[in-house]
Amino acid sequence: MNKLAYMINRAGRYYAKQTAVVLGDRRLTFAEVDGRSNQLARALIQLGVAKGERVAILLYNCLEYIETDFALIKAGFVRLPLSPRLSPGEYSYMINNAEASTLVFGREFTGIIEQIKGELETVKHFVLVGEGDACFAHPYDGLLSAQSASSVCVDVCDDDPYQVLYTSGTTGWPKGAVTTFRSRLSTLATVLIEEMRVTRNDVMLSVAPLAHGGGTKILPHFVRGAVNVLLPKYSPESFCRTVEKERVTTTWLVPTMIIMLLEYPDLKKFDLSSLKTVVYAASPMPVATLRRALETFGNIFVQVYGLSEAPNPDLLLPKEDHILDGTEQQLRRLQSAGREVFGVRVRVVDAAGKDVPPGDIGEIIITGDNIMTGYWKMLEATAENIREGWLYTGDMATVDEDGYVYIVDRRKDMIISGGFNIYPREVEEVLHRHLAVVEAAVIGVPDELWGESVKAVVVCRPETKVSEDELIAFCQANLASYKKPKSIEFVKELPKSANGKILKRELKKKVLGRLRPHG
Amino acid sequence: MNKLAYMINRAGRYYAKQTAVVLGDRRLTFAEVDGRSNQLARALIQLGVAKGERVAILLYNCLEYIETDFALIKAGFVRLPLSPRLSPGEYSYMINNAEASTLVFGREFTGIIEQIKGELETVKHFVLVGEGDACFAHPYDGLLSAQSASSVCVDVCDDDPYQVLYTSGTTGWPKGAVTTFRSRLSTLATVLIEEMRVTRNDVMLSVAPLAHGGGTKILPHFVRGAVNVLLPKYSPESFCRTVEKERVTTTWLVPTMIIMLLEYPDLKKFDLSSLKTVVYAASPMPVATLRRALETFGNIFVQVYGLSEAPNPDLLLPKEDHILDGTEQQLRRLQSAGREVFGVRVRVVDAAGKDVPPGDIGEIIITGDNIMTGYWKMLEATAENIREGWLYTGDMATVDEDGYVYIVDRRKDMIISGGFNIYPREVEEVLHRHLAVVEAAVIGVPDELWGESVKAVVVCRPETKVSEDELIAFCQANLASYKKPKSIEFVKELPKSANGKILKRELKKKVLGRLRPHG
Repeated sequence: MNKLAYMINRAGRYYAKQTAVVLGDRRLTFAEVDGRSNQLARALIQLGVAKGERVAILLYNCLEYIETDFALIKAGFVRLPLSPRLSPGEYSYMINNAEASTLVFGREFTGIIEQIKGELETVKHFVLVGEGDACFAHPYDGLLSAQSASSVCVDVCDDDPYQVLYTSGTTGWPKGAVTTFRSRLSTLATVLIEEMRVTRNDVMLSVAPLAHGGGTKILPHFVRGAVNVLLPKYSPESFCRTVEKERVTTTWLVPTMIIMLLEYPDLKKFDLSSLKTVVYAASPMPVATLRRALETFGNIFVQVYGLSEAPNPDLLLPKEDHILDGTEQQLRRLQSAGREVFGVRVRVVDAAGKDVPPGDIGEIIITGDNIMTGYWKMLEATAENIREGWLYTGDMATVDEDGYVYIVDRRKDMIISGGFNIYPREVEEVLHRHLAVVEAAVIGVPDELWGESVKAVVVCRPETKVSEDELIAFCQANLASYKKPKSIEFVKELPKSANGKILKRELKKKVLGRLRPHG
Repeated sequence: MNKLAYMINRAGRYYAKQTAVVLGDRRLTFAEVDGRSNQLARALIQLGVAKGERVAILLYNCLEYIETDFALIKAGFVRLPLSPRLSPGEYSYMINNAEASTLVFGREFTGIIEQIKGELETVKHFVLVGEGDACFAHPYDGLLSAQSASSVCVDVCDDDPYQVLYTSGTTGWPKGAVTTFRSRLSTLATVLIEEMRVTRNDVMLSVAPLAHGGGTKILPHFVRGAVNVLLPKYSPESFCRTVEKERVTTTWLVPTMIIMLLEYPDLKKFDLSSLKTVVYAASPMPVATLRRALETFGNIFVQVYGLSEAPNPDLLLPKEDHILDGTEQQLRRLQSAGREVFGVRVRVVDAAGKDVPPGDIGEIIITGDNIMTGYWKMLEATAENIREGWLYTGDMATVDEDGYVYIVDRRKDMIISGGFNIYPREVEEVLHRHLAVVEAAVIGVPDELWGESVKAVVVCRPETKVSEDELIAFCQANLASYKKPKSIEFVKELPKSANGKILKRELKKKVLGRLRPHG
C-alpha cells in the first residue's frame, strides 16, 4: 500500500477534467498531471531506477517539478530536492553524499551540471527538463512520450524513506535530514487540519522555491481537488498580478516577501480580495511588519514554525491569534510562533532536559511522526540531535502559561558580550519599529574588550534619512543598554537563501571581511 | 506514548479556563473536564482495573459520559458503549460477551442493572452516576473526590484496542466490532480535515446518544478548544432553544431528527443563524427531505457514511455537493453518500471482488486505518467480513465516473419478487416525494405467488388525507410497475433505534405478526 500514491491517483480520477496546476498560460488537468507523473515513474523504472534510490531535483518552480515529485512518490524513490541558488560545489557534495542515482535538472542549470558532472560518482541517469542540448541527459518529454499513462503504485511502508533534505549547514558540510512516508503523511494531515484547511474551491499560489517548505503545500491541495498556481520568481508585481488573475485564495510567503509587498507602491491597484489565507514561515516576522500586514490585508495570516529535521508545521499561530485590538495578552501573542499542531509535541527545556518554567529561556525539542529518522550517513550528528525520540532543534525560546512558544533566537546566533547573552532577534525587533528601517540583521563581531559586540546591518527605505547615531539612540531608548548595537552598517540588501532566509553566516563573513580586510 | 491522552491533557492546559462542555445550566472548563477524567482514571486504576480491560458505559448524554470516555483513553481501558434503549437481555449479553470488568451506569438504569446483576459474570466494579441507592455500586462523585486531578497517561500503542462496539445484530446475537487507538486517531483526523473542520470558535451540539456515531464528535472539538454542548433528549423545541441560546455552529443529526425539525411549526421563531455545519448520517436521507432542508437552512449540510465496523466517516458528501440549482449531474449527487474521505479507500465490487463498472450494483468494501481488527471472540464472522484487509459491508451501491457512491440498500433488506430484485430505498424515495408522507419504510412480506411482495408502512402528516390506492397509484406513476407496493399500512410512528435508525427487522416482525396473527 502506497497511501500517498493512491491519493494522487484518486485526485486524478475524481477531479479528472478540472484544472490542477497553472503556470502562466500553461494549464494541466488533474488527469494530465496524474498521467504524466505515471509516465515519468514508468520511464525511470524502465531505466533501472529501483525503489529507495535517491533522485535529485534541480528545477525552478515549474509543472515538471510537480510531476517529478508525484512520480517519485508513486515509484517509491527518495526525493532529494536541491535549492536553486547553491554553488556547484554544494550540489556535487549533496548528490554524492546522498548517493543519488538520478538527477532531474532544468535547462537553466545545464552549465552547472556539465561543470560538476565528472565529480558525480553515483548518478547513472540525467534527465533534462526543457529545450537544450545536454547529450548526456535524457530529454524529459521524450521519456514521458514513450510510456503509458496508466497508474503506477509501488508498495511502500510508512517507515520507508521519502526524502533527504539538506540543511543549510551552518557549520561544516550540510547534513541530509531523512524523513519517511509517515512524516509526509503526518504533515499532509496537519496542513489540512490546521495550516490551510483546504477545500476544493481553493487556489494555492506557490512562489517560494518548491525545494523548500512552501513546496510541500502542493500535495495537500492536489489531493483535495484544489488548484495549484506556480510562480517561478517572486516579485510584488508578479505576485499581485497572479493573485488577481487566478483569484488566489491561499499562499505561503516568507517575511521578506511580505515586507516587499507592503513596500510595493502599486499594491492598491490590484484586487487581492480573493486571498483568505497567507501562511508565513521560514524566518522571524518582525511584529511591526506583522501589524502593518494585518492592517493592510485583514485577518488572513497564519504563522508556522518548522525545520528540515521536523518538517513544517510544528508550531502554528492561527488567524484567531492575530488580533490587533485585543487584550495585552492577545497583543503579546503576535510575537509568538504559536502552539503545537495536531500530532506533534513541542517542549522548551533546560540543559538538563527539564521543561523550563514560563518565561525562562530554553531549547525547543520536538517529537511526532513528522520528525526525521536521522541524518543521512551521519550517526554521530544524529545522536547529538535526537535523544530518546526527541529532536533537539538548537532554537531557543520561552513558553507562556498557555503553551504559546516565543522564539528567542537560534542558539548559535546568540551574542555573548561582556558575559551577557544577547539574542539578535530582540534587537532586530526594535530596529524594525523605526520607520526608516525596511530590514535589519544583528550579528556579533569580535571585540577585544567585550569578547563580542553587537552590530546591526540595516536596509533603509530609499526616501528616508537616518543616521547611525539616531538608530543607536532609538535602540538605547527601547532596550537594555548592553543590548544596543555598537555600530550600524547601512546596505542596499541583505544576503538571503533561495527561501528568503537572511543568511547570517554569510553576512558575518562579509562584515568581518570588511572589518579585517587582511584577516 | 498515548497520543489521545496527550491531546486531551494538552487541551486541558491550553484552554484551561474556557468553557469546554455545557449541559443545561452546568458548565465545566477544559481544566475541570481534564482533571475530573484524571480523577476517574485514577480511581478505576486504584480499584484494580487494568489496561485493556473492558469498561461498559450505560448513560444518557451527560457530562460524566465525556469524563468517562476521557478517563478510559487515559488509562488504556477499552470502551464498551451501551445504547440506552436496548433490553436487559441485550445488555447482559454484551457485557458478558465482552467480559467487561467494570460498568459505569446512570441512576435511570439502576432498575435494569439490579435485574441483570446476577447474570453479569465478569463485572467486578459497578459505578453509579447520579443520586441513587445501589449499594453494590461505587458512587461516581465519591470515587472522584478521593483522587488527585493530576495527569494520567498510561502508555498504549496504536494497535491496542480502543473500543468494542456492538452492532445492531440483524441476525443472531449482536457482534462486537473491535477498533484500535489507530482507528480512533484516524477518524479524529478525518473529522477535523473533512467532516467538521473544527476551529476553536466552534460550538458543537450533541443530541444523538453518545454511544453512537454522533458521540465521536466530542473529542475532535475538545482537542481543538471548541465548546461541546449536550442535550440528553432530542425534540425540535429543545434543539432550537439550545442552538439559539448557546450559538451552536455545528451539530450531527440523523435524518429523522431533520424531518422532525422541518415539521416543527415554531421553527421560524428561533434564531438558528449560528448553525454553519449540520452533519447527517446513520440512515438514508430522502432527497425530497434534503431539498426542503437546504431550502430552509441553506448550504450547511454534510453527509457522512460509516458503520460500526468502519467508524464514521468513510464516505462524505461535502457542502460543495449540496447544490439545488445546479446541473443535472450536480442534482443527481444529492442522492449520493459522497466519496472516500482522507485515508480511507472505498470500492464497490461484484461477487468476484472486482470493481463494478459505473452504474452497476455491487457491494461496498472498505479499507483504511479506521476499520475494525475483527469481531470480539468471533473468528468466523470476522473472516467472513474482512478479506485481504478489506471490510465487506453488506451495503449495496453503485458508483459513478467521478467516484461518487450511491447506496442502493442493505443487501439483507433487498426484496425478491417474481425473480426481480427490489431495493426498498428506491420505493421509499418515491413515497417521500408525496406531500402527505412524513416517513416511509418498505419491506418484503411473504407472497404465495411472487415469493415476496412489496409492502410500505407510512407515517402521514396529521392534517393531510391520502388513501392507500392514491399512494400506490403515485408509486405506479414514478416506478417500474413490479416495484410499486402491493399494500400500504398507515401508522403513527415507525420503530427506531436510539440512534434514529428505522428498525426494519422489528417492523417486519410487527407487520408479519398482524398478517399472521396465529403464525
